[in-house]
Amino acid sequence: MSTSRFDGVLAPVITPFQEDLSPDARRLSRHCQWLVSQGAGLAVFGTNSEANSLSLKEKLGLLDSLCEAGIDPAKLMPGTGACALPDAVELTAHAAKLNCGGVLMLPPFYYKGVSNDGLFAFFAEVLQRVGDESLQIYLYHIPPMSGVPLDTTLVERLAKAFPANIAGIKDSSGDWNNTLALNELGLEDFRVFCGSESFLLQNMQAGGAGCISATANVNPSEIRSLYDNWQAADAPQRQQRLDQIRSIFQSVPMIAALKAATAHYSKDSAWLRVRPPLLPLGAGEIEPLLEKLALADFQMPDI
Amino acid sequence: MSTSRFDGVLAPVITPFQEDLSPDARRLSRHCQWLVSQGAGLAVFGTNSEANSLSLKEKLGLLDSLCEAGIDPAKLMPGTGACALPDAVELTAHAAKLNCGGVLMLPPFYYKGVSNDGLFAFFAEVLQRVGDESLQIYLYHIPPMSGVPLDTTLVERLAKAFPANIAGIKDSSGDWNNTLALNELGLEDFRVFCGSESFLLQNMQAGGAGCISATANVNPSEIRSLYDNWQAADAPQRQQRLDQIRSIFQSVPMIAALKAATAHYSKDSAWLRVRPPLLPLGAGEIEPLLEKLALADFQMPDI
Repeated sequence: MSTSRFDGVLAPVITPFQEDLSPDARRLSRHCQWLVSQGAGLAVFGTNSEANSLSLKEKLGLLDSLCEAGIDPAKLMPGTGACALPDAVELTAHAAKLNCGGVLMLPPFYYKGVSNDGLFAFFAEVLQRVGDESLQIYLYHIPPMSGVPLDTTLVERLAKAFPANIAGIKDSSGDWNNTLALNELGLEDFRVFCGSESFLLQNMQAGGAGCISATANVNPSEIRSLYDNWQAADAPQRQQRLDQIRSIFQSVPMIAALKAATAHYSKDSAWLRVRPPLLPLGAGEIEPLLEKLALADFQMPDI
Repeated sequence: MSTSRFDGVLAPVITPFQEDLSPDARRLSRHCQWLVSQGAGLAVFGTNSEANSLSLKEKLGLLDSLCEAGIDPAKLMPGTGACALPDAVELTAHAAKLNCGGVLMLPPFYYKGVSNDGLFAFFAEVLQRVGDESLQIYLYHIPPMSGVPLDTTLVERLAKAFPANIAGIKDSSGDWNNTLALNELGLEDFRVFCGSESFLLQNMQAGGAGCISATANVNPSEIRSLYDNWQAADAPQRQQRLDQIRSIFQSVPMIAALKAATAHYSKDSAWLRVRPPLLPLGAGEIEPLLEKLALADFQMPDI
């Protein structure tokens, strides 16, 4: 694993499924190639990837397929956190072996109300068992889904205990004050990503590294463009434009909406499939979504 | 899988670990044999089993070991729910193949706020893919941990759609009104277990089937005795006694406390180990726990 760190815009890449709901490695590789062409990095196996609806074996296989398809592993930040220590260790070690640029790691998320000492022990044990000194872990704070927050005290403790390996964090709390507090920890070379492009301009102004956001699956170039131009005079207008597009996707269940837009703009209805417990959008949800996107002059160029 | 249904008292069996934190099949079998001798059934891979801290491969292996050690599969109700459909299918199918008496199934618990239609689709898909017409599924409602409730509307819908396979529910909501409402659904041959023996007498009076409770790991015979004598004149006193013991275990983190007591009474300190993110009790917690248990004349006979 390279020790250089991520910055910029990454997409938690949506996962296409075949008719029998098995993952579709070929379509996933193609979508990854498109995202890279639009300036986005690849946070495969994130929340919006339905990663926790995939088995360990499926994730190991998809990671191999992506690398075999010629995706640059330096662009990959697979989600490798799991409830069970051996699962987190096996997937993380595999990502390290494939020279992925880093991994995004959820805390174990079944047991709620666990102590910071217990969470610290989990991450420390993963590091020790993977045993790759160049391993780059980005912590994944998403309390609305995980129910297990990584508070700033714990983040600081982990980053100071393992400065070579704890590379940053994705903050999907939706709480700007928390993202600000993470930036203000002043940790050396520690990359703070906001979990939504709604906070991208603020995060850059606060010293952050960029964003890892659901809508980067569909709107990567506009998001990337704000990242590249955050000090430009028109940055607030760019931010407004991103907010406008995001709000359209947020008006319906997000993952199904990203897939519906991808299916529409790529003219490939296979993208509509999701795994239970998620459900695809109904026709009565897709049509208004596409109308709003058209009215906003939204495009997915060259997909 | 036999189509007869569970009733009585089951323990969500605590899982012993070796020094390297791998599961200890030999000690687990021994504890299961003791529990059966005390009148308890075996809900292995429950919340108190740290089941979601175990990999799928570890659970498949432990289930084989238990059957090879001579545990009667009819006594086994392994937890087989998982976030990922293929994991739930594989473990459930394995349990069915081994003729386990039933399985206890969590909903997929990563995505929060999912619809009843999506949860219904998940369980329906598991049933269809396992394809064993005698499969006996007990639903597992534990919103404080899963964050994904199974409301009575969904329970009723599942039980009516699959009356031969949806055999009952464990209600670990801690909300007696919910357990009562489940009993009052009036579903035929549908077994309602409370998730704590605190509600055992009430649940039996309401027509319930028994309880599946953490403390059945350490106090099985007294809990079983209330189950066997719930219509006796001294049932309220028996309930009080159970509540007294339970409150001692609840004064510290439950899973670590169950293991500390088992380690003490079986004179086997290997039982103290837990997997991160859980932590074992400190000496300062174990001593007062054991003192309170001794004062209450608590025993784990013949362990």
